[in-house]
Amino acid sequence: SVNPDLASERQTASFSVEKLTARLDGGAEHTRIRRAVVQAIECDPEFSRENQYFQSQNERYEAAVRKAVHLQKKMHEMGWTENGPEFKYIYRALSGDVAFLLHRIFMRSISVLGSDKQIAKWIPLATQYQLIGSYAQTELGHGTYLQGLETTAIFDITTQEFILNTPKISAMKWWPGDMGRSATHTVVFAQLYVHGKCYGVHPFIVQIRSLQDHSLCPGITAGDIGPKMNFEHVDNGYLMLQNVRVPRENMLNKFCEVQPDGTYIRRGSQKINYFTMTTVRISLISDEVIIPLMKACTIAIRYSVVRRQSKLKPGEQEAKILDYQTQQEKLLPQLAAAYAFHFINDYLQELFDKGYREIQRKNFDTLPELHAFSSGFKAMVTQYCTSAVEICLRACGGHGYSLLSGLPSLYTKILASCIYEGENTILLLQTARFLIKCFMTASTGQPVPPSVTYLAAMKPGKCPANNKLDFLSPDIYTEAYQHMAVRLISSTAAKLQGLIQSGVKKHEAWNQCTVQLAQAAKAHCHYITVKNFVETVEKLETTSGIQKIMKHLCDLFALHGIFSNAGVFLHDGYISGAQMDMATASYLGLLAVIRKDAVPLVDAFDFTDKSLNSALGSYDGQVYQRLYEWAQKSPTNKQMSPAYERYLKPLLHNTRSKI
Amino acid sequence: SVNPDLASERQTASFSVEKLTARLDGGAEHTRIRRAVVQAIECDPEFSRENQYFQSQNERYEAAVRKAVHLQKKMHEMGWTENGPEFKYIYRALSGDVAFLLHRIFMRSISVLGSDKQIAKWIPLATQYQLIGSYAQTELGHGTYLQGLETTAIFDITTQEFILNTPKISAMKWWPGDMGRSATHTVVFAQLYVHGKCYGVHPFIVQIRSLQDHSLCPGITAGDIGPKMNFEHVDNGYLMLQNVRVPRENMLNKFCEVQPDGTYIRRGSQKINYFTMTTVRISLISDEVIIPLMKACTIAIRYSVVRRQSKLKPGEQEAKILDYQTQQEKLLPQLAAAYAFHFINDYLQELFDKGYREIQRKNFDTLPELHAFSSGFKAMVTQYCTSAVEICLRACGGHGYSLLSGLPSLYTKILASCIYEGENTILLLQTARFLIKCFMTASTGQPVPPSVTYLAAMKPGKCPANNKLDFLSPDIYTEAYQHMAVRLISSTAAKLQGLIQSGVKKHEAWNQCTVQLAQAAKAHCHYITVKNFVETVEKLETTSGIQKIMKHLCDLFALHGIFSNAGVFLHDGYISGAQMDMATASYLGLLAVIRKDAVPLVDAFDFTDKSLNSALGSYDGQVYQRLYEWAQKSPTNKQMSPAYERYLKPLLHNTRSKI
Repeated sequence: SVNPDLASERQTASFSVEKLTARLDGGAEHTRIRRAVVQAIECDPEFSRENQYFQSQNERYEAAVRKAVHLQKKMHEMGWTENGPEFKYIYRALSGDVAFLLHRIFMRSISVLGSDKQIAKWIPLATQYQLIGSYAQTELGHGTYLQGLETTAIFDITTQEFILNTPKISAMKWWPGDMGRSATHTVVFAQLYVHGKCYGVHPFIVQIRSLQDHSLCPGITAGDIGPKMNFEHVDNGYLMLQNVRVPRENMLNKFCEVQPDGTYIRRGSQKINYFTMTTVRISLISDEVIIPLMKACTIAIRYSVVRRQSKLKPGEQEAKILDYQTQQEKLLPQLAAAYAFHFINDYLQELFDKGYREIQRKNFDTLPELHAFSSGFKAMVTQYCTSAVEICLRACGGHGYSLLSGLPSLYTKILASCIYEGENTILLLQTARFLIKCFMTASTGQPVPPSVTYLAAMKPGKCPANNKLDFLSPDIYTEAYQHMAVRLISSTAAKLQGLIQSGVKKHEAWNQCTVQLAQAAKAHCHYITVKNFVETVEKLETTSGIQKIMKHLCDLFALHGIFSNAGVFLHDGYISGAQMDMATASYLGLLAVIRKDAVPLVDAFDFTDKSLNSALGSYDGQVYQRLYEWAQKSPTNKQMSPAYERYLKPLLHNTRSKI
Repeated sequence: SVNPDLASERQTASFSVEKLTARLDGGAEHTRIRRAVVQAIECDPEFSRENQYFQSQNERYEAAVRKAVHLQKKMHEMGWTENGPEFKYIYRALSGDVAFLLHRIFMRSISVLGSDKQIAKWIPLATQYQLIGSYAQTELGHGTYLQGLETTAIFDITTQEFILNTPKISAMKWWPGDMGRSATHTVVFAQLYVHGKCYGVHPFIVQIRSLQDHSLCPGITAGDIGPKMNFEHVDNGYLMLQNVRVPRENMLNKFCEVQPDGTYIRRGSQKINYFTMTTVRISLISDEVIIPLMKACTIAIRYSVVRRQSKLKPGEQEAKILDYQTQQEKLLPQLAAAYAFHFINDYLQELFDKGYREIQRKNFDTLPELHAFSSGFKAMVTQYCTSAVEICLRACGGHGYSLLSGLPSLYTKILASCIYEGENTILLLQTARFLIKCFMTASTGQPVPPSVTYLAAMKPGKCPANNKLDFLSPDIYTEAYQHMAVRLISSTAAKLQGLIQSGVKKHEAWNQCTVQLAQAAKAHCHYITVKNFVETVEKLETTSGIQKIMKHLCDLFALHGIFSNAGVFLHDGYISGAQMDMATASYLGLLAVIRKDAVPLVDAFDFTDKSLNSALGSYDGQVYQRLYEWAQKSPTNKQMSPAYERYLKPLLHNTRSKI
């Protein structure tokens, strides 16, 4: 039975939860398919995550491999294919605890970087799992700066082979997933040398384990890099190569080739390759970043209407903690952000689909803009959502700190998204480089890509708001964000130019501006996110109450940003102190409004109890009962600890020599 | 041998590292004692933490119990006593991984709340470990709001016993340390009922496990609450009581007593009891919060001069990542904060020692101020340091995410400090209540406690800075902080009064101001921290370069706060936009200055490699070598995973039915 404190929250929803779910899924038909996939996965005991919080790293890995193997069977049974509409929901339904994700990257890298001949040879083997692939790029000493990779591949003309080596410890491959214990093959990125000349980093297919007995191949040292903050299910590995020889044909050679006589040939455009890296950044945002935040919001908000603590009014029953303004101010902006980022993700997906079509027509014009988008939004969204999940965790007090709440795992996993696929600061600076360039171009009156035309339109002016209601006008706050972004970009551009004109070398001047450049890039992404939220709300259907509540969330997201980053809005007086007070009043006022729909708004995310895997977040709100039931299953309760016989008993019985 | 990239950083220190260490310890003699304790603990293999990152929850618990038992022996051997100068360094040397900490709280609660007779009975038993104690206050349903505890203790006049019960699941004791598997006794807090009348929460000594065989006593259900984000070494437990009878003498009765005929007597002052809770909050700041931040800074900064990535200037060697402005801006403010909080901790200790002496003389006048201090600083310092440790972790990229870096454990442990011993938001609001009261008092011209006399001295004015150098003047920034704190407190007080005058009920008005009240309380603590740092620097010896570098750190701490919270300084125009640019220029300029001494500044914290337990942070900077060595010890590398025979081999060999 549903806890009455949670049930009552659902009776007063101002909108149709089911219709909002359908909107989030992109239509009711998608909702139906998603639920069917989730249902099929969750009713299969092989995919159970019931013991997840009690498992060791070894157990997590074994379960992930088991699930990956079982998934092949399941897909066959269910008639799901990689190109079918169900596919994208499978990973979500598994909550990511599955092996062989790098096997897929292995295949993708061959498809993109390999010749037709190489594709014809390797892809069928990989598809049928006659080998297990991985992708060995990062080294102990190099992640971000790929040109600095130290693994070498020297062409031996006499045998027509490449000889691969790890010349020093920092050159060891480190972190590749599926490589520590599973993979038989991997794509190794190494500096290519022919006749003593270095041609830069190239990809080579290398077998690392026997297909017969899985023993390491000659010259290979490999293993698992050990425990991490999360991702215990992945065997992130290390790899050392000592005179490992691979045939000439194993260098992926769609774009570059070493001919038998050692002639190095580069052909075609590698731009499409960069585009692949760019799309990976965008594709991870939904599953790895936004969904975890939605889960965290669901858990924390449901718990906050079940948890009662202290009294809001003397003499009354203890209050639900979500009725406290401070708790609302912790959680509701994160809820608004989850929606904001869901919508910006839709926008980015569309932009990239369009970009992809252009690129297939050999039009590479949009590449710089897409690259700037993918870098900036990956950084901004991962950072924002990581903080947001942490806020949700802390907002649940002690119980949030228990693994059984599900929140610690969400946090330790989403945190990694700030680091992988490009470290966030580096990415922001790439976006900043694009913005500065566009700003310079725009200031000379030349055309710039559509997303940054606003840079040309800097109006000095002041915010026209006269009262707190004005701050619920999207025009008012969108213009404030725009003004702020332009100001940060233009003032940093001015600082940069000033330094260079005063004689500071270009690279040094750049370094001295990087803190502000990163800030400017974030401001740009924040502005685009607000603008997109506003535009999305305008297009929503006005029935079923959805547009109204989304408008509130959009206002909250925008005003929370103004409240939390007041300095950048106040700096040049665009918003005055008095106006900031109005914005704050509107912001705090919205909390009480949205609070009424908080539970329906997380219900609309439509997570099953199994997918939340949280004692605090279940649909029925039976929080304390579930915490107790789950705790009893802990291995720490399975038997009396050997610590009793060994240490406690002698201590208590004083059989040891007297202390 | 020391990595040359790290060695070179030490050759250019602008100050005497050894003298700074002595200053941090409170004198060279303390340094000597601390090092002797650390040495004695670390050379004893029983206290090794070598396998910590590979251990299960069960193994961590067993090790903690083993260490706690061994510690008794060690203290005897070494001649260390609880009142000796070595004692406070033991816990630090063990890095906290030791059991029976709640046994000490058990003893402390009896000493404070028990009668002389009770003390005479229980303390010797506990001292000699003829029992193991715990402290059962928090329940599943209640943490913050102690009046809401639901466990009952009903006096049975016929048998002269209390009958303890857990009337519902939310009343179950949940979280007490040492209780899940170790404790034989615990102090249970329960609602006292005599003749059907409730007298509120009182403490009762209850035996929960047999002293013979450790089996649970009749009526007791107890166990471990399962996995947490950290603290795997502690057996946080649950406890359910069903008609558990304890004799009348087991209610701790220094302040309250139930007489044989059921008469309830309250005597003396409980104020001293609140003071005990207050001191616990202060005492945890050093070991649980500041030291972890110092460790995180040590790890991240040492790693950042060993890690080279990408090029700062074309054609040169790859740069140390600490040479990038963005990396400096991540780490150096955290380093400055570690010093700032070390000094504020010294200040708080002194304040509390003085307060304690007053209280022993029955002068309770300073209690409200001390309570406000302990609440506000506990909240502010734990929150700040938790964010700071997370920044250090993220700043180390992928390798920071490995448990072997030591950073994830530091983070997951320090995070708990935001929750335990008072949830931070609740604590800030308690400080805010004190500040509002003092502000009201001051505005009527009446005297207020010394720490808040500044509230009476609100001058409108503007910041007098004319150029960026002015922002390196402590007067300039201290006054800015003071102005900002007064403004936030006074404007929130005005809002509160306005609401009440407009007819909003008092408690509702308070709730509507809580977001801003919490902000005001933080601002107050931030101001006091800056002011104390300034005053500390002024008193430092001017030789050995210590005062100079501490002045830089003090400036950095203050300007970082202005840069990151620009809005609250700009709001009323006290600092103008142009001045904010000056402050920012000074702030960014300081980064490059302090960067030169960054390694000596963390060396001065004087952590041994064993206490850091970090592959990234060791004194010798042999980062990659150590990561590789440690990874090889991981249980994931001990043998071929059973996953191969079970899942991978059938998959690769296609012995399963074809997919």
